[in-house]
Amino acid sequence: MSKNITTRAEDYSKWYNELVVKADLAENSGVRGCMVIKPYGYAIWEKMQAELDRMFKETGHQNAYFPLFVPKSMFEAEEKNAEGFAKECAVVTHYRLKNDPEKPGKLIVDPNAKLEEELIVRPTSEAIIWSTYKGWVQSYRDLPLLINQWANVVRWEMRTRLFLRTAEFLWQEGHTAHATRAEAVEESEKMMNVYADFVEGFMAIPVVKGIKTETERFAGAEETYCIEALMQDGKALQAGTSHFLGQNFAKAFDVKFATAEGKQEYVWGTSWGVSTRLMGALVMTHSDDQGLVLPPSLAPIQVVIVPIYRSDEQLVTIKESVNSLVLALRKLNITVKFDDRTTQKPGFKFAEWELKGVPVRIAVGPKDLENGTFEVARRDTLTKTIVSSEGIEDYIQDLLAQIQADLFGKALEYRNTHITKVSNFDEFKEILETKGGFVSAHWDGTAATEEKIKDLTKATIRCVPLDQEKEEGVCVLTGAPSAGRVLFAKAY
Amino acid sequence: MSKNITTRAEDYSKWYNELVVKADLAENSGVRGCMVIKPYGYAIWEKMQAELDRMFKETGHQNAYFPLFVPKSMFEAEEKNAEGFAKECAVVTHYRLKNDPEKPGKLIVDPNAKLEEELIVRPTSEAIIWSTYKGWVQSYRDLPLLINQWANVVRWEMRTRLFLRTAEFLWQEGHTAHATRAEAVEESEKMMNVYADFVEGFMAIPVVKGIKTETERFAGAEETYCIEALMQDGKALQAGTSHFLGQNFAKAFDVKFATAEGKQEYVWGTSWGVSTRLMGALVMTHSDDQGLVLPPSLAPIQVVIVPIYRSDEQLVTIKESVNSLVLALRKLNITVKFDDRTTQKPGFKFAEWELKGVPVRIAVGPKDLENGTFEVARRDTLTKTIVSSEGIEDYIQDLLAQIQADLFGKALEYRNTHITKVSNFDEFKEILETKGGFVSAHWDGTAATEEKIKDLTKATIRCVPLDQEKEEGVCVLTGAPSAGRVLFAKAY
Repeated sequence: MSKNITTRAEDYSKWYNELVVKADLAENSGVRGCMVIKPYGYAIWEKMQAELDRMFKETGHQNAYFPLFVPKSMFEAEEKNAEGFAKECAVVTHYRLKNDPEKPGKLIVDPNAKLEEELIVRPTSEAIIWSTYKGWVQSYRDLPLLINQWANVVRWEMRTRLFLRTAEFLWQEGHTAHATRAEAVEESEKMMNVYADFVEGFMAIPVVKGIKTETERFAGAEETYCIEALMQDGKALQAGTSHFLGQNFAKAFDVKFATAEGKQEYVWGTSWGVSTRLMGALVMTHSDDQGLVLPPSLAPIQVVIVPIYRSDEQLVTIKESVNSLVLALRKLNITVKFDDRTTQKPGFKFAEWELKGVPVRIAVGPKDLENGTFEVARRDTLTKTIVSSEGIEDYIQDLLAQIQADLFGKALEYRNTHITKVSNFDEFKEILETKGGFVSAHWDGTAATEEKIKDLTKATIRCVPLDQEKEEGVCVLTGAPSAGRVLFAKAY
Repeated sequence: MSKNITTRAEDYSKWYNELVVKADLAENSGVRGCMVIKPYGYAIWEKMQAELDRMFKETGHQNAYFPLFVPKSMFEAEEKNAEGFAKECAVVTHYRLKNDPEKPGKLIVDPNAKLEEELIVRPTSEAIIWSTYKGWVQSYRDLPLLINQWANVVRWEMRTRLFLRTAEFLWQEGHTAHATRAEAVEESEKMMNVYADFVEGFMAIPVVKGIKTETERFAGAEETYCIEALMQDGKALQAGTSHFLGQNFAKAFDVKFATAEGKQEYVWGTSWGVSTRLMGALVMTHSDDQGLVLPPSLAPIQVVIVPIYRSDEQLVTIKESVNSLVLALRKLNITVKFDDRTTQKPGFKFAEWELKGVPVRIAVGPKDLENGTFEVARRDTLTKTIVSSEGIEDYIQDLLAQIQADLFGKALEYRNTHITKVSNFDEFKEILETKGGFVSAHWDGTAATEEKIKDLTKATIRCVPLDQEKEEGVCVLTGAPSAGRVLFAKAY
């Protein structure tokens, strides 16, 4: 199998686009801006879902499902949220087609089937969910409401890219309601931490935890917590957000509760989400010019075994010897594929599984059988080792854990060496242009300066990191006083 | 907790509607015809999904995801399918809202953001999927394509009922492509059998397997296989369908493959689906006037333990003794809830868990502690037994299996005694009006007779059963020759 992928050095963006398609993760569909997630890509997404779902349930959340459509009047109830999403809403106006009287076999929208009120295809579900919560919350005993939904949402984007920015995408959205401000803030922070643990622990992608500036905040939130990751081209990617909504949605949808003392109060809300965008982050963090590199926790196939043989008898013997290895690995919950296709040569298979990012490849030929060994190759480092067949299953198990740790370590080192403190705007621009990554700089705290820097450099404030030493200074652009550094970067 | 549900005898339809809401399964939303699936209902759906997904994967299928929207021209490519669904399609015509210049804070659809081509919200995904398969299939080596999707679909229904008929519903849809007619037919039948195994084995609902008449066939299919269940009111419910599509979609979307001999041929297709409608079938098959009755395989909580106590010290002692039981049950993968709420009395708790259909309730008070016993109550029979605490976990495990089997047995007996053979139209009408259920009758095979019977009695042909003795006769309505009996019923 020939890979023919553009290299990262040639054109990082093209490399990404080609890799996503060639590795069978996703492709563009016949519907503008909407993607098809192919089985191999979807299998990775399913692993993400399963782990996140487990983490949500462990932290007390339950799944539910709310309507795809939001009536316009409901959508506009929380004004800031509505305004923030209005420009990218797909709108359903009719509910029937009919035969085109002029062209047999063709259909037209039936003008007699116009909806009385237009329906918005959810770009996010705060409106529909808070309109429902009104019926679910009467007393403090009904709180907290800790609910998550797995769903598709639509945001009409003009320029789309597979996984990173698509008109329709899959995500989960948590929506919680609490009796006190403190509890809602705690929930927002907790879910940011759940996301960080998942992205670091399972996706092997290091993140910076922080809060968004007012400009970058979710429309309708009082505070947006985020986790920011860094891609190999030095651009940042927002990997997940968790919003403290204050009482904004409670007020917009009149969701009140009786306190233990019998007083009526508005509830406090949060919402939080991650999406199929994480698939893009996964590809761009670990993969290389040979194809995907998948962390073992998320690889649909963790180990592939390729037989090397010249005759049918050799294949039979190899199959027999491999069989017990396959069983031993499966016993350890390792996903193994024995690639015994007779239609393809080993070289083709090696290239294919490299392209698809299978973490460990085991090759076995007649010589290995004689010597009681296997050839074990790591996808991440592209290195090979001869390993004795005795106890090899434990070796593989350890190796998978090692690969998971090494991928994180490598990405962490890259990230850490790509946070650069600057003290003036020339340095700021130079670092951004030459080295990329996060630029840690003082900022005067105004939206005007933030916008000016964006206009001049395309860099935005990714976050105010939560975990940094307090340090006063002066704004890198205006020289005005700054209460602390923030992280700027060009971003996806 | 007071239940106050209408009884089945009073008004079966009302009983169903009230029960679905009171047992916290689902409720109507602020969006016409769309439901909110509440956490308890969604937890049951998740169990169904998990088991079906396992069965699909075990039979070689992979999951993928295709767009929510279908451009109109793509939608109309397969004419029969398009015509079949045109009258119930939600149509997206615009992609942006803007501020209403006349009413501050309100939004209107931006007339400058009209789509060049309208997008249909998928009522089913054959069109979008077959347009994709064109790019995936070149040679016989690419076949079979065995793909499933979990998704939401929209069919604009005028009269809706929770789970049974909603504008938006959740489902899975399998879409497969094969090199030969025989293989595609085999796949359609296989998936009908998978559905039957699931519905009978997991949902404890007996089904009749059969094929649909041309009138009732899926638009665009050559044959529709189905499983039909019978509800407690004697009405039938179509629980799942599997369609042999012939080459209809392959021709409409030009999906050809090169055979091993190098000839170009159209591929053969199938599609098959079950939906959240199954939740309705679940409720209507097993539940009673006290509330839900859930088969243990699908119950989010299989065992609830309710402490009976007069003092705090008693509660502490009970907790200690219950703790080891909880652990022992969990070890057997039994889902247990220890309901130690101090805000509710035991009577309230009993009623609540009965309403929610928890299969087994264990009550434990100071006397039980003294005697080393527990009081075990079955939800399905509402009977109680005193059981020694020694080895009770095995007793419970066996009991759950027994309940699962008994629920199926009871439903099977009801179903079997509600298939009535009739030999003339008077009998036909009488059975339908008095006893209900399936009426097994001869039919002349014409759509005209089928329609006439429907007009006269509201009964439709549910299926031509696959598993029945060959018997010739004369049509119950027209007296014309009939090649065999079919099953009529009023249906949901």
